Amino acid sequence: MPFTKSVWSKVETLPRERIEEIQLIRLQRMVKFAYDHSPFYRRLYEEAGVTPMDIHELKDISKLPTVDKTMVDAVQRENPIFGDLLTTSRDLVKFWTTTGTTGPSRLWAYTREDWENVSYLYARGLYGAGVRPGDRFMICANYPPALGPWGCGYGIEYLGALPIPSGGWDTKKRVQNLLDWGVTGFRATPSYTLHMADVAEEMGLNLKERSQVRVIASVGEPLAAVPATKRLIEEKWQANVSDMVGMTEVGGPVMFVCQEATREEMPAAHLNEDYFLIEVLNPETGEVLGPGQEGELCITSLLLYGMPGIRYRTKDVVRVPEVDFCPCGRTTMRIRGAIKGRTSDMLVVKGINVYTSTLENLVRALPNLNREFQVVLRTRGRFDEIVLRVEPMPHIAQEAYPNLARTLVDKVKSAVGITVAVETVPPGTISGLGEQGVILKSKRVIDEREKQ
Amino acid sequence: MPFTKSVWSKVETLPRERIEEIQLIRLQRMVKFAYDHSPFYRRLYEEAGVTPMDIHELKDISKLPTVDKTMVDAVQRENPIFGDLLTTSRDLVKFWTTTGTTGPSRLWAYTREDWENVSYLYARGLYGAGVRPGDRFMICANYPPALGPWGCGYGIEYLGALPIPSGGWDTKKRVQNLLDWGVTGFRATPSYTLHMADVAEEMGLNLKERSQVRVIASVGEPLAAVPATKRLIEEKWQANVSDMVGMTEVGGPVMFVCQEATREEMPAAHLNEDYFLIEVLNPETGEVLGPGQEGELCITSLLLYGMPGIRYRTKDVVRVPEVDFCPCGRTTMRIRGAIKGRTSDMLVVKGINVYTSTLENLVRALPNLNREFQVVLRTRGRFDEIVLRVEPMPHIAQEAYPNLARTLVDKVKSAVGITVAVETVPPGTISGLGEQGVILKSKRVIDEREKQ
Repeated sequence: MPFTKSVWSKVETLPRERIEEIQLIRLQRMVKFAYDHSPFYRRLYEEAGVTPMDIHELKDISKLPTVDKTMVDAVQRENPIFGDLLTTSRDLVKFWTTTGTTGPSRLWAYTREDWENVSYLYARGLYGAGVRPGDRFMICANYPPALGPWGCGYGIEYLGALPIPSGGWDTKKRVQNLLDWGVTGFRATPSYTLHMADVAEEMGLNLKERSQVRVIASVGEPLAAVPATKRLIEEKWQANVSDMVGMTEVGGPVMFVCQEATREEMPAAHLNEDYFLIEVLNPETGEVLGPGQEGELCITSLLLYGMPGIRYRTKDVVRVPEVDFCPCGRTTMRIRGAIKGRTSDMLVVKGINVYTSTLENLVRALPNLNREFQVVLRTRGRFDEIVLRVEPMPHIAQEAYPNLARTLVDKVKSAVGITVAVETVPPGTISGLGEQGVILKSKRVIDEREKQ
Repeated sequence: MPFTKSVWSKVETLPRERIEEIQLIRLQRMVKFAYDHSPFYRRLYEEAGVTPMDIHELKDISKLPTVDKTMVDAVQRENPIFGDLLTTSRDLVKFWTTTGTTGPSRLWAYTREDWENVSYLYARGLYGAGVRPGDRFMICANYPPALGPWGCGYGIEYLGALPIPSGGWDTKKRVQNLLDWGVTGFRATPSYTLHMADVAEEMGLNLKERSQVRVIASVGEPLAAVPATKRLIEEKWQANVSDMVGMTEVGGPVMFVCQEATREEMPAAHLNEDYFLIEVLNPETGEVLGPGQEGELCITSLLLYGMPGIRYRTKDVVRVPEVDFCPCGRTTMRIRGAIKGRTSDMLVVKGINVYTSTLENLVRALPNLNREFQVVLRTRGRFDEIVLRVEPMPHIAQEAYPNLARTLVDKVKSAVGITVAVETVPPGTISGLGEQGVILKSKRVIDEREKQ
């Protein structure tokens, strides 16, 4: 039984000092557990000269060294298959992989207790996003060993709704069944969500008339930070769309945008603070950042036993979380805009940080542009230049292109403070590069800068 | 904890009279439950003039009308999405579909209790096939809403092994990871199992040296009834391969070949008799067949509550189950050869029943033939004729083809009593028709007979 009509668990509404008490107790236990059972953490902490006894208050966490994926790669290469991060070989029930752009997969094992926590946290987030017992919820994924689609399905079941897997189906089949079966929610990336709407249109199916979808769980790409894409999805699906951020490396669902917050211009995501301790670091120096700043999300799982995740650097860019009032009644801290992108999506041009998600947002806010775009980085004299390549909508006359380009130049200038060049290309040029609505990052951002 | 080193549950070893006692109590309860809660069954039984009170002993089951897929289609069309077969709208946790060759999917909802039973029964069967706690087990499937791959994964977890999903992966990736990660078992169709071995060879990977696979759970196609294919798989993978028969329509894992029985020439599969009551019917007349006969498998689930399955006609062809001695210690009845094919795979030629699986077996027993084949049915004068199209191995000289053909003609004659025509075609002609090792039935059996 949910705690209120908006909130699944009472713990989400505790006073801050009580949440922090819980966090401290769990942090102390977790660090001790990792130190005692994971040779990896024992070695790491011994080399840094710290022990579990050094954690007296929450901010002592910064005494501990951070962990990143290259360290996991190294121990898994040395000691297959899970590396000596693993604390036990018993009761491992789930197996996930994460893939970098190069090299072998990283492997993750979850204990039964770990997985129960993941299921519970997904239920909490999905309930917050508006999924209700009795709902029919489609998971638009092919089910590789990735935590996201699996955890989401378990969460749906946990809260009393019916998960509908759709692995191996093409988009037409998903769209048709979604309508025929009265599906009330689904999980997909924003790109795929828009692609499904396009396919429905091609099939002559009117979503506004036929869709019963109320809730879309958005995963894998920034959404709250890209209000224009969010509005497009809301418009096409007439449904609430919530960022649902889960990470395989650190025990699953870290934050989610609640139903109430989807009305905000740039929604903030609630952190599952009883399970995760969040820091935001300067990606270069590792320094802990304060209110109002943006940097790399660093996560500590407070209850992850198979392969603990303590100060794991995610390479995701977020704003520092804030305590703010949310009408849903949760007291947990929130991150405005949720995930903004990857640290590697941050383009540094003329000394200014620009995220592709910011450019995406500006492009998609202009109704006379198709939603696709490319970012080309070039060297112009001594400086770098951003060329933003966009597709006007088919009904726009060629003569109107220059005006459209000027509007976009102005929008970018006022949003991020730099002048970009805008290039208009015939409709289909960029969107034709995608597959199932997804354009690979390698085709999205093209770096033609001269290398020094 | 398993009951013995071969048997998961004590109930698998009970004396027959005790098993039948359990079956009768469960049958009476199940029929009453369906009558009380499923409008579909109430209507069916009222029309037939039977009530739950008419079931006094096990053989009274034949008083009840049978159910087939066309009846499910009809009620689901009339009353979407599950039809009035459904007994409850609460606590439905799993959703599966089954597809016919024409028309929409049939939909199946499982309650939490139903699904716990499925998980337990898969664990029992997989343990029987040789999977052990701590094993790493890959499920080679893309995870559409089909009971098989999901149930298998839950069963693996239930018995304490680690399931490795591989949805959306291509064969190369599956084979590579299977070897790199020390996978000890997997679930696949026989065709795909052989295809993976071919791909490993193409990749220059030596399965005999590198594979740690001990157990293969074979699904979706006849295997025990096709000893030549079974031997091919054993030879290539150096592993035990067991038929694992699960059916979405009737609550999952109905029978499995135990590890001990894989040594039999044509293994017999143990029935999960505490959960299922099995009858074998004449597919034309519906008459119940006796020992030694072959016919349509008709299943009654004794513990399936969401959408009961009582006397469900499967269209699968089996021999009548027998009580026989199995060295594993189970006392449950067994079906020699497990599933032989679909009733629709039965070719009636010159008044004799011929199964494509029988022909497959004969083709694959000849080492000088590639494993692929086609069956062409033709009219020759007043009679039907079977043309068996086969591919000699690449190293066989053309001059040897007629001899090879004669050998096969003789083998078929002595096995099924009819004379077929054998046509040899160049290597690659038939195998080139497949995708990922699977040749569609429409390309496997070609009916060129003149229609009357």
